[in-house]
Amino acid sequence: MTSSLTLTEIAQKLGGEVCGDSGAKFSQVASLQTANAEQIAFLTDSKYLSQLNSTRAGAILLSAAHTDVTSLPRIVVDNPYAYYARVAALFNTESTPAGIASSASLAVDAKVAASASVGEYAVIEAGAVIGEGAIIGNACFIGRDAVIGTGSRLYPHVTVYHHCQVGRDCVVHSGVVIGGDGFGFAEDAGQWIKIPQIGRVMIGDSVEIGANTTIDRGALDDTVIEDGVKLDNQIQIAHNCRIGAHTAIAGCVGIAGSARIGRHCKIGGAAMILGHLEIADNVTISPGSMVTRSLPQAGVYTALLPLQAHEDGIKTAVHIRQLNVLVERVANLEKELKQLKELKSLKEQKT
Amino acid sequence: MTSSLTLTEIAQKLGGEVCGDSGAKFSQVASLQTANAEQIAFLTDSKYLSQLNSTRAGAILLSAAHTDVTSLPRIVVDNPYAYYARVAALFNTESTPAGIASSASLAVDAKVAASASVGEYAVIEAGAVIGEGAIIGNACFIGRDAVIGTGSRLYPHVTVYHHCQVGRDCVVHSGVVIGGDGFGFAEDAGQWIKIPQIGRVMIGDSVEIGANTTIDRGALDDTVIEDGVKLDNQIQIAHNCRIGAHTAIAGCVGIAGSARIGRHCKIGGAAMILGHLEIADNVTISPGSMVTRSLPQAGVYTALLPLQAHEDGIKTAVHIRQLNVLVERVANLEKELKQLKELKSLKEQKT
Amino acid sequence: MTSSLTLTEIAQKLGGEVCGDSGAKFSQVASLQTANAEQIAFLTDSKYLSQLNSTRAGAILLSAAHTDVTSLPRIVVDNPYAYYARVAALFNTESTPAGIASSASLAVDAKVAASASVGEYAVIEAGAVIGEGAIIGNACFIGRDAVIGTGSRLYPHVTVYHHCQVGRDCVVHSGVVIGGDGFGFAEDAGQWIKIPQIGRVMIGDSVEIGANTTIDRGALDDTVIEDGVKLDNQIQIAHNCRIGAHTAIAGCVGIAGSARIGRHCKIGGAAMILGHLEIADNVTISPGSMVTRSLPQAGVYTALLPLQAHEDGIKTAVHIRQLNVLVERVANLEKELKQLKELKSLKEQKT
Repeated sequence: MTSSLTLTEIAQKLGGEVCGDSGAKFSQVASLQTANAEQIAFLTDSKYLSQLNSTRAGAILLSAAHTDVTSLPRIVVDNPYAYYARVAALFNTESTPAGIASSASLAVDAKVAASASVGEYAVIEAGAVIGEGAIIGNACFIGRDAVIGTGSRLYPHVTVYHHCQVGRDCVVHSGVVIGGDGFGFAEDAGQWIKIPQIGRVMIGDSVEIGANTTIDRGALDDTVIEDGVKLDNQIQIAHNCRIGAHTAIAGCVGIAGSARIGRHCKIGGAAMILGHLEIADNVTISPGSMVTRSLPQAGVYTALLPLQAHEDGIKTAVHIRQLNVLVERVANLEKELKQLKELKSLKEQKT
Repeated sequence: MTSSLTLTEIAQKLGGEVCGDSGAKFSQVASLQTANAEQIAFLTDSKYLSQLNSTRAGAILLSAAHTDVTSLPRIVVDNPYAYYARVAALFNTESTPAGIASSASLAVDAKVAASASVGEYAVIEAGAVIGEGAIIGNACFIGRDAVIGTGSRLYPHVTVYHHCQVGRDCVVHSGVVIGGDGFGFAEDAGQWIKIPQIGRVMIGDSVEIGANTTIDRGALDDTVIEDGVKLDNQIQIAHNCRIGAHTAIAGCVGIAGSARIGRHCKIGGAAMILGHLEIADNVTISPGSMVTRSLPQAGVYTALLPLQAHEDGIKTAVHIRQLNVLVERVANLEKELKQLKELKSLKEQKT
Repeated sequence: MTSSLTLTEIAQKLGGEVCGDSGAKFSQVASLQTANAEQIAFLTDSKYLSQLNSTRAGAILLSAAHTDVTSLPRIVVDNPYAYYARVAALFNTESTPAGIASSASLAVDAKVAASASVGEYAVIEAGAVIGEGAIIGNACFIGRDAVIGTGSRLYPHVTVYHHCQVGRDCVVHSGVVIGGDGFGFAEDAGQWIKIPQIGRVMIGDSVEIGANTTIDRGALDDTVIEDGVKLDNQIQIAHNCRIGAHTAIAGCVGIAGSARIGRHCKIGGAAMILGHLEIADNVTISPGSMVTRSLPQAGVYTALLPLQAHEDGIKTAVHIRQLNVLVERVANLEKELKQLKELKSLKEQKT
């Protein structure tokens, strides 16, 4: 199922300059430490140079700066890590045969492209459209009038609610729920009246969504995930958020309703972003940070509580709680010292 | 599928005073900014008054205080936001035809009401009861002796373990797991002995549960979610918790075992509540706050770390870690200043 | 379905010293407060001694230290809580009949042991192996060449991706996703190039995994969960992590890529562990703590922000943000006081 290629054949596909192609065929990538003679390793950072001496890899991907550090067959490229990603894709992409599993349940007017694949027990409801080459995993649910774009892959157990759209070449992992109702209720005499959520989720092209991530449909307008966004596992994106193109969000992040995240942002794991905030392009949020205000400027933002031995951590919490007292004590000291100095200066004037 | 109604017809159903009914029929709601002439918008706050000038909405829902701010056809009501929710429900509730999908798997002694709907690949085990008008989505699993109340809707891929109960008129979104084992283990010589979790999950009426939320069954007694509770996505409720009626909990919240949350509480997103705590009625917890002690008084509670530019955030973390040193330095200053003043006062007495 | 046993029969199976066996048969456990005469309760801590007076339990499990505190029939054991767990297992383990549901989809070369049970709509792909006595719940997905060990139980809606392995006697709850792609992308000219994730997830024996927990497959090498690990609900374990044997992790925890957690650790709920860290054996992390550095020493570690009334919490956040200013003010005070004392001492020298 995987390809077997010489360095020259790889470079013909992906670019780069080959040094010392032995004609050997490769069919897998590996790290410098674990690669064998049939595998290609990669050097992305000078700190791994020492591993070159002991590597058993059959070939190396590296940058021009490192061309001469090894005599192994190699491909010299601008960005060895990205190049490694592309070589790995050459070797590890399997084709899924087109066709609809006999146990899948398709509405009469669902449109499934001829080259698409639909797994066992998948349900595709009325008006839904599945693009060319798309792969709908086992037991996925594609709701009424939903659209899955060309070349997108949904792993088993993905749920796409009615009217939601997934773009081209997306990857959606198991347990993802796209288009559940946003959390919208009107308070009325101590009870909550449900606000029907009639917007959609609109997902662009080349988006990846990790396992068990949830993206809610909009209340009136849509929730939007732009092209190239990468979402890790167990992320919660509330209704009417907009995530800008090529932003990457790590696991366990929560984004509250109507927040707008810019393009090319990086949101660290378990960070939380409150509702209705606006985050500029190129913002990086450190892991675990709570974002409580809009961030109109690019930059790195952090809220960090130090981890300590338990007894110290408890004492620190007490100190934090009493910070107002400490601030007052310092103000008192400043006042008293000032008085003392004034008194002294007065006395000195007198004398 | 949706209704089409005049303002007068709406008011006949939901109350409110109609001003200037043109006889036009409406079939959808929208915001002031996006509504067209066939849609009804709503004004909930004076800060949106300026949007009234440019709105293309065909009618407005507003409060008595705003009756005269527009000449558009309108319904004057006490709580425009709650009224909008009810109008939206009129326009956006679709009926699901009753019946059991041919591919569903029902135990012989499962009881499914005649007006209920059971989707493709759903499994309903022995002794389970599905109430009148309930909708069991595709591939849902309803375990042995579980009960789903009248009018409740389970979206696709919901799991209800054996013996658990969901009340009437509930909404349960995809990926929800009700009744998984609580996290109960006895430590024995460095290993963990599983404690069978033999309680149930008991969910009241009019509860909504967001996508991928999990509620564990009790260890010996039951985990209880009272009437009218609203749970957002990706919430974790551990065994033997009790959530009081009409409490609303935002996404990503975790509630540890045996915690008891009062009625009408509001728990912000990503807040965490430790086990065995008791939270009074009408408590509000700010997003991201860790609740480490019982809260016997109603009120708003907050634990908040400021977000800063990264360098400042790191320095702040260091300052926090060294708070004990700072407190000591202030105490020293106080002591020294006191000595200085005593010395001075002594000298002055002498002179 | 459950057993019915006398105290003597229980002790024959599980050890312990019986006092006053009445010959009565028991078939369930309960707490001291709720037990009836047909149920066995347990006393694990002196603080519950008062409940002994009013209990209606038919028998008690307790330690030698408490032998004489009751005249009820009892079993005296070393670890009453662990013993209770084992008694509860005797009474509450149900057997699932072996066999493959007619609607399950098995690849021709999948190997399912004769004593295994496969539920409705389960999918078992080519080359997968299901061990003796294993239970594959309804609509589970077992990918290509995956292995489920002897005696392991997967509740409905579990996803195990290709090549991943689950050991013996594991319990995996609904919504768990094992082996989704790790979050690996190479940045290239502002876009993210997907790095194929070709490692596996390898799970040891006697591991329990709570509902909707996700464990990602490794990038090149494997993600490893060792024997006896207990994972609660909604935990995210990123690619290439290793979790040491008998470590217990509470709900909502996130562990970033390549972190290595030791054996016998206890990670509190909602704690977060950054990537590439090493945590020693026997480390305890308090709930909600962010672990930002390796912890080479056993011990308890805590990062805790105090919860306060909202107004105080907001003021505290401001004080925290201005800690650098406070530190400077204290340093100024120290300097000025020192100058004052030097001046004084100088003057005194002069006089």
